[in-house]
Amino acid sequence: MLMAAEIGEQPRVFERLLAARSVIAQVGDAVRRAAPRFVLLAARGTSDHAALYGKYLVETRLGLPAGLASPSTLTVYGSRPDLHDVLFVAVSQSGSSPDLVDSTAAARACGALTVAVTNAPDSPLAQVAELQVDVLAGAELAVAATKTYTAELLALHLLLCPGGDPALGRLPEATERTLQADRSSEVADRLRAAARMVVTARGYSYPTAREGALKLMETSYLSAAAFSGADLLHGPMAMIDTDVPVVAVVSPGRGGRAMAPVLERLRERRAPVVQVGPGGGLPVDADGLAEELLPLVEILPLQRLAWRLAVEHGYDPDRPRGLAKITETW
Amino acid sequence: MLMAAEIGEQPRVFERLLAARSVIAQVGDAVRRAAPRFVLLAARGTSDHAALYGKYLVETRLGLPAGLASPSTLTVYGSRPDLHDVLFVAVSQSGSSPDLVDSTAAARACGALTVAVTNAPDSPLAQVAELQVDVLAGAELAVAATKTYTAELLALHLLLCPGGDPALGRLPEATERTLQADRSSEVADRLRAAARMVVTARGYSYPTAREGALKLMETSYLSAAAFSGADLLHGPMAMIDTDVPVVAVVSPGRGGRAMAPVLERLRERRAPVVQVGPGGGLPVDADGLAEELLPLVEILPLQRLAWRLAVEHGYDPDRPRGLAKITETW
Repeated sequence: MLMAAEIGEQPRVFERLLAARSVIAQVGDAVRRAAPRFVLLAARGTSDHAALYGKYLVETRLGLPAGLASPSTLTVYGSRPDLHDVLFVAVSQSGSSPDLVDSTAAARACGALTVAVTNAPDSPLAQVAELQVDVLAGAELAVAATKTYTAELLALHLLLCPGGDPALGRLPEATERTLQADRSSEVADRLRAAARMVVTARGYSYPTAREGALKLMETSYLSAAAFSGADLLHGPMAMIDTDVPVVAVVSPGRGGRAMAPVLERLRERRAPVVQVGPGGGLPVDADGLAEELLPLVEILPLQRLAWRLAVEHGYDPDRPRGLAKITETW
Repeated sequence: MLMAAEIGEQPRVFERLLAARSVIAQVGDAVRRAAPRFVLLAARGTSDHAALYGKYLVETRLGLPAGLASPSTLTVYGSRPDLHDVLFVAVSQSGSSPDLVDSTAAARACGALTVAVTNAPDSPLAQVAELQVDVLAGAELAVAATKTYTAELLALHLLLCPGGDPALGRLPEATERTLQADRSSEVADRLRAAARMVVTARGYSYPTAREGALKLMETSYLSAAAFSGADLLHGPMAMIDTDVPVVAVVSPGRGGRAMAPVLERLRERRAPVVQVGPGGGLPVDADGLAEELLPLVEILPLQRLAWRLAVEHGYDPDRPRGLAKITETW
C-alpha cells in the first residue's frame, strides 16, 4: 500500500515545501536577475505534466513565451541551437534519465540558464544544471509517481511566481479536505467495466487531465487518453460513445468555464461523464485557492481513482507490470 | 469515397506545391530577414501534428528554440507576453477556428512576426497574419484531413529550410510508390478486433504517430493513443499487453534507430507490433529521401489503415459521427 500512503502524504509534503519557500525564492531571484526572454521546459512522463503546468505559469504569470523541449532534438539529432536569453527548466523525480541529463548539459553549453527541479538533490541532473530546486517530497517508493508530481507543481509555482500567492498557506488544508471528501470508491464501481476512458480539461487543468490519464494507464492498465477540451472537439470526439466514460476536470475559473461547450457536446453524444471539481462525482474542496493553484489539489481524486481501479482489478498499484521506478531513456 | 480519393491525390498535391516553391521561399526570406530568436507554432487537431513537425525543423535546421503555443493562455487567460523577436506560425486547414484567429491577432499585437499556413488564403486566419503560405491542397471534402496534412508538412519544410533539399523532387514519386506498396488491407484484417491501439515513434516520426492515432480515432472510433517511444517507457508501457496492438513507425534514420530499445521492450511484453517503414507490415518506399522528409510519406499507410478499418466496421470515413469539417473552438 505504498501508493495509497504516498497519496495521503501530500498535505505534509506541501507544508514542508512551503516552510522552505525562501530557499526556492532565492533561486527564483537568480532566474529573474538573468532576465530570460524565452523559457524551455524539459521532462518525461509524469514530470512532463508538471512541466506543462510550468509552461502555463510562465506564459500567464511571467508573460514570456515558452515551449516544452523535445529532448530528442538535442540528443538523438545533436542539434545545438542558440539558447542565449533562454531559461531551460528540467523537471525529473529521480534526476537520472540520461536523455534529460544530456539535453540539460547541451542546453547549458548552448548558452541557456539551466535549472533542475528534482526530488534528488545529488542526482546527475541536479549536478549538471547551474541552479537547482529540491522538491522535498521524501523517498517515493511506489512506481507510480504521486507526491513527487504535486511537489514538482508547488516547487515550480514557488520558483516562477514572484511574490507568491497569499492563499498558498491554505493549500495543505484544502488538500486534506479533498482527501477527506474522497468518493473514488463509488466512481470506481461505476467505471470498473471500462477498458477505454477519456480524460479532458482546459487551461490550467489540462496538465491534470494528462497526469490523471497516465495514472490510469500505469496502474489500472486502461487505455486512458487525455485531450484538451478544444482538441477533443477537433477529431477524437468521434470515438466517444456510451461505452467510453469521460472524466472531465471542470474547475472554478476560466479553464473550467471554457469546458462548457465541450460538456454540451459530450451530453449530445450521451457519454457517461464524471466531473472532477467542486460538487463533482470526484469532488475537490479547495475554496479560496486561485485557479492556478487548483492543479495541485484536483489531481488527488484521480490518483485515488487509479489506485482503486487497480486494486479492484487485482493489480498491484505499487509495482505495475513492465515499469521500473527510474526509467532510462536516451 | 472522398477520403480514399484525397489520400490518392497526395503525389499531385506535392507536385503542385513544389512548382510553387519560389513563392513560399520568398515568405521564408522575409522571415529570415526578421531574424527571429524563438519560434512558436499554434494549431489544433491534425494541424497541430504538422506544427510539431515544424518544431523539429526549427530546432534542427534553423537552430532556434521553439515551442507549441497553448492558445488558451492568449485567449482564455488573456495573457499578453512580450513576443518581440518571436516568429509565430499558425497552421490550420480552414483558417477559421476562432481561437487560432484570436491568438494569432494577439501574438501580432504583442510584437511577434506572424505567418499563417493554411489551405484557405481568404480565411480570417490568413488575413489576420502578417505573412501567409497557401498549402495548395485543393478543396478537401472528407472530414478527416489527409492531403491538407501532408501539404502543411511540405509547406512548412519549404518555409523553414533555407536552400531546400536536393531530394525534394523525388518526393511525389516516393509517395506514389508507397501508395502502390499498400498492404493496409492485410493489416486491417489482423487488427479488426482491436478496440484499443498504441502508435509510437521517435524524433521526426513522432508527429506521424500522433497523426496516425488521430486518424484511427476519427474514422474507426478506436482508442488509439500516441506516445513518443521515450515517453511510452515512462509509464504507458504498463497497459501494453497481448491484446493491445502497437503500430511502431520505424524509419531509416536517427529517430528510427532510437526506437530499438522500445521495440525490445514491446517484444518482452509480447505486444502484437506492426511496423511502418521499409519492409514493415505497412511498407514505406522512400529511398533517397532524407529522414526529415519521411514524415511526408510515412503517414500514407496509416491514413489508408484508418480508412480501411472504418469501412470494415461499417462506418463512413467521409463523415465521422460527431464531427464537422470546420471545428470552432474558443
